[in-house]
Amino acid sequence: MSGQSQIQTDSQNLTDVQGSSDVRKVPIDKVGVKDIRYPIRLRMRGGGVQHTVATVNMYVSLPHHQKGTHMSRFLEVLNDHAQEIDPSDVMAICHDIKQRLNAEDAHLELHFPYFITKKAPVTESPGLMDYQVSYECTSNGDSDMVLGVKVPAKSLCPCSKEISEYGAHNQRCIIEAKIRAKKMVWIEELVELCERAASSPVFSVLKRPDEKYVTELAFDQPKFVEDIVRDLALMLDVESRILWYSVNSENYESIHNHNAYAALEKDKRTG
Amino acid sequence: MSGQSQIQTDSQNLTDVQGSSDVRKVPIDKVGVKDIRYPIRLRMRGGGVQHTVATVNMYVSLPHHQKGTHMSRFLEVLNDHAQEIDPSDVMAICHDIKQRLNAEDAHLELHFPYFITKKAPVTESPGLMDYQVSYECTSNGDSDMVLGVKVPAKSLCPCSKEISEYGAHNQRCIIEAKIRAKKMVWIEELVELCERAASSPVFSVLKRPDEKYVTELAFDQPKFVEDIVRDLALMLDVESRILWYSVNSENYESIHNHNAYAALEKDKRTG
Amino acid sequence: MSGQSQIQTDSQNLTDVQGSSDVRKVPIDKVGVKDIRYPIRLRMRGGGVQHTVATVNMYVSLPHHQKGTHMSRFLEVLNDHAQEIDPSDVMAICHDIKQRLNAEDAHLELHFPYFITKKAPVTESPGLMDYQVSYECTSNGDSDMVLGVKVPAKSLCPCSKEISEYGAHNQRCIIEAKIRAKKMVWIEELVELCERAASSPVFSVLKRPDEKYVTELAFDQPKFVEDIVRDLALMLDVESRILWYSVNSENYESIHNHNAYAALEKDKRTG
Amino acid sequence: MSGQSQIQTDSQNLTDVQGSSDVRKVPIDKVGVKDIRYPIRLRMRGGGVQHTVATVNMYVSLPHHQKGTHMSRFLEVLNDHAQEIDPSDVMAICHDIKQRLNAEDAHLELHFPYFITKKAPVTESPGLMDYQVSYECTSNGDSDMVLGVKVPAKSLCPCSKEISEYGAHNQRCIIEAKIRAKKMVWIEELVELCERAASSPVFSVLKRPDEKYVTELAFDQPKFVEDIVRDLALMLDVESRILWYSVNSENYESIHNHNAYAALEKDKRTG
Repeated sequence: MSGQSQIQTDSQNLTDVQGSSDVRKVPIDKVGVKDIRYPIRLRMRGGGVQHTVATVNMYVSLPHHQKGTHMSRFLEVLNDHAQEIDPSDVMAICHDIKQRLNAEDAHLELHFPYFITKKAPVTESPGLMDYQVSYECTSNGDSDMVLGVKVPAKSLCPCSKEISEYGAHNQRCIIEAKIRAKKMVWIEELVELCERAASSPVFSVLKRPDEKYVTELAFDQPKFVEDIVRDLALMLDVESRILWYSVNSENYESIHNHNAYAALEKDKRTG
Repeated sequence: MSGQSQIQTDSQNLTDVQGSSDVRKVPIDKVGVKDIRYPIRLRMRGGGVQHTVATVNMYVSLPHHQKGTHMSRFLEVLNDHAQEIDPSDVMAICHDIKQRLNAEDAHLELHFPYFITKKAPVTESPGLMDYQVSYECTSNGDSDMVLGVKVPAKSLCPCSKEISEYGAHNQRCIIEAKIRAKKMVWIEELVELCERAASSPVFSVLKRPDEKYVTELAFDQPKFVEDIVRDLALMLDVESRILWYSVNSENYESIHNHNAYAALEKDKRTG
Repeated sequence: MSGQSQIQTDSQNLTDVQGSSDVRKVPIDKVGVKDIRYPIRLRMRGGGVQHTVATVNMYVSLPHHQKGTHMSRFLEVLNDHAQEIDPSDVMAICHDIKQRLNAEDAHLELHFPYFITKKAPVTESPGLMDYQVSYECTSNGDSDMVLGVKVPAKSLCPCSKEISEYGAHNQRCIIEAKIRAKKMVWIEELVELCERAASSPVFSVLKRPDEKYVTELAFDQPKFVEDIVRDLALMLDVESRILWYSVNSENYESIHNHNAYAALEKDKRTG
Repeated sequence: MSGQSQIQTDSQNLTDVQGSSDVRKVPIDKVGVKDIRYPIRLRMRGGGVQHTVATVNMYVSLPHHQKGTHMSRFLEVLNDHAQEIDPSDVMAICHDIKQRLNAEDAHLELHFPYFITKKAPVTESPGLMDYQVSYECTSNGDSDMVLGVKVPAKSLCPCSKEISEYGAHNQRCIIEAKIRAKKMVWIEELVELCERAASSPVFSVLKRPDEKYVTELAFDQPKFVEDIVRDLALMLDVESRILWYSVNSENYESIHNHNAYAALEKDKRTG
């Protein structure tokens, strides 16, 4: 038997269709598996580890001459790394995919809820807040990793406050920040920057004195959706570990059935 | 050829597997097709017709002795009624399903966005508001139809207003009302009742004088989620065409990342 | 100070608006908090504990004379039970809500992904499968708990197999089973019954010999959506711990852009 | 009154907060309104017009010195164009946004279901198929428009077919194609190319002879997710009106609870 036929069948003589050659001359940017639910463990800033559940996407590039990739290997790589994960591990899994699938480029995306204990601002009643977090990695000789957080917060409209005799419309907003960094930035740090860009943070447990505080804080800090992304951009500008950022806020307007939205992106390396 | 074999094959001699008999003695409550997108036309209160797109579910009951239903017939009934629909037509389609599928019970569910032109409260700038509407029908000798609307609105927290020096947290809420009626109730009528139960309606187009009005209106009419469902219940109580209702409100709290919710149901026929 | 004023203000003299009385005479069935994300730990059948993330809803009934409920107390109950949860704990949390909110009825709903290690059928390669699980509890003097699982599986059409020269259309389906039981039923047990009702289970990791096995198994066990719910019903009928069940299957037909659906419910206590 | 104060207050002397100046020196890429539902009418290839419902996003860029945009103007532009829309109109609306908001860049995104009558392959029974369609436009001096379609279809696994004694796993997939073109390409044309790249199209109404045909067609044309995007790329390569394309397929594997995915992009102008 030739080496070729060894490649094309396995121990049970089942043909390796994916391993055969392709003549269409069409390389593929990304091929792999999508929407896998998987439990993960993450190191937290304050020490300790938290358990959560990620949705995972894993892709490789495929050269024009290869018919298909071997989908089950993605899952095997994931199973090999089922234990404790921290940001450096995320990139390592991505490198492993590249190696195991014998690919030029490998991509790994994780999306998961992340929990942070947050005390109410006056009574200090503790509560767990949840944030949507993502890691998007590429391994292609170089390493690229984007950390993203989606942070629920409160926005209060400066125009409504200015023109009304009393009150001001306000609403929940979701502030998203994605960054590339030259040194580790904790999820907790990025969440805090987003919350500082809003009219007020939101909380899990609020007693009456806390509710009074949050109501008045937001009224004292009115922000358009434009203000939120600008104030967040200024904070990311002065954080020297961050090389690139993309931020947006979506405000679920309490006077409309549609949303206000603003977005901007900056690469500090190129200007 | 026996009648039996005529039932079990069609003109091309393809076996009718669904039409064969079943020995497991398990009747099925609902079997059919789900999540069909379909364009529909609806008569509006003010005259005229609007076009929208529905998601459609169609089911029948299946007696214990029959192996399967004929799924393609549901689609054929839908195609037969592809033209103008008003509430009486919805029930007629449901009766048609019962007859065409030769069933004891037939169920038809339509969910669709419905548009109402609404003028801004001060400048009277016109805008189109969208509401999620549903019809849920059963035909089983008797006729049963439930009309439902989901109405975006604004709620402003009475506690936050009371305890704060200034301002009050407010947010978008979705108020849902479902009714059974002995006489026709227009979608537009049910939407208006829901909007009157909120701290303020929401609008598509608001100029500055309108925004001022809505902000102050909501501040003047603070409502807990409990108040919204109670005030809506009282309005449905006095509407004599309505026999039964189920209402709820989900408030997307602007101080939390979770929602406040209240629900109640009443059958006026039984007390 | 009278007892009344102690009820209506707290230590900082902030008015307790929720605690005041209501004159509208409208009792509320359910009021509370919805869509809270929360990390939980669950005991597994084989021993050990798994961590996952639940979406939590918590409600109480509200008598007609009370203006509002105290939303922050729901979160405090949840925080008190943040540690290891098993089915008996779920009911205990529900009783706690009833007591802490001083209510006639309390409701607790948990929805979460649950992971089970499953070996591929031939190579025995291990993989993690995820299932959506729910607990829905009511505490109102009596205790009521419904366990639900949503199980992805494979269905292969008997009609397509019968009438075609070769092949048969097949697709992913989601089989849902909800039960009330007089004795503990493990999540793992209910998942297995659902998988046995399908043409074939699905797996996380499949090597070529496994893929061959699953393909042929499904072809050997063709099932209409009607067959899936009937075969599952028969298995639940003979399981004496189960008092009541509601089952359905939604098949994402690979020949249509809509789904096939069947559902049935049975209360073994009443017939 | 100075010109400045005329800009900053309106006829009712309400301050124009958005129109004031900003000193933070942070330009914004996109600011506007998101997730508006709106009924639209579209010209069809065969003549005639269809009504559907779009989700609309509208954004402009904001220079660093301007505090905010005027959100209500987006809705006014949309209302001005509420009537019949064809692809050239979409770009015209985008130009109008740019002009009305006095912006450097304007963006318009429409997503909507589009319906095409399709006959069953053997019996020619007619049925309505729905496809998700998008237009994404930018007006910034130049005009840019991307047309996208998401096409449900059927994929049948070549490996499963090759290694199994009988049968082959197959499933619904969603094939997405986005294009930039130098001359008009109809939605209907792009949908047909996507369907030809699959193992088989899917249909709304299939009688038994049709089901037999589709089952056998798919078995005769097995395709990996890689094959689907490659075959689609080859068809887009030879269509000279198309300058750029991005294609992907997501296959809802019937043997797994995760999806297979492949994607590639090509700019024919640059290589």
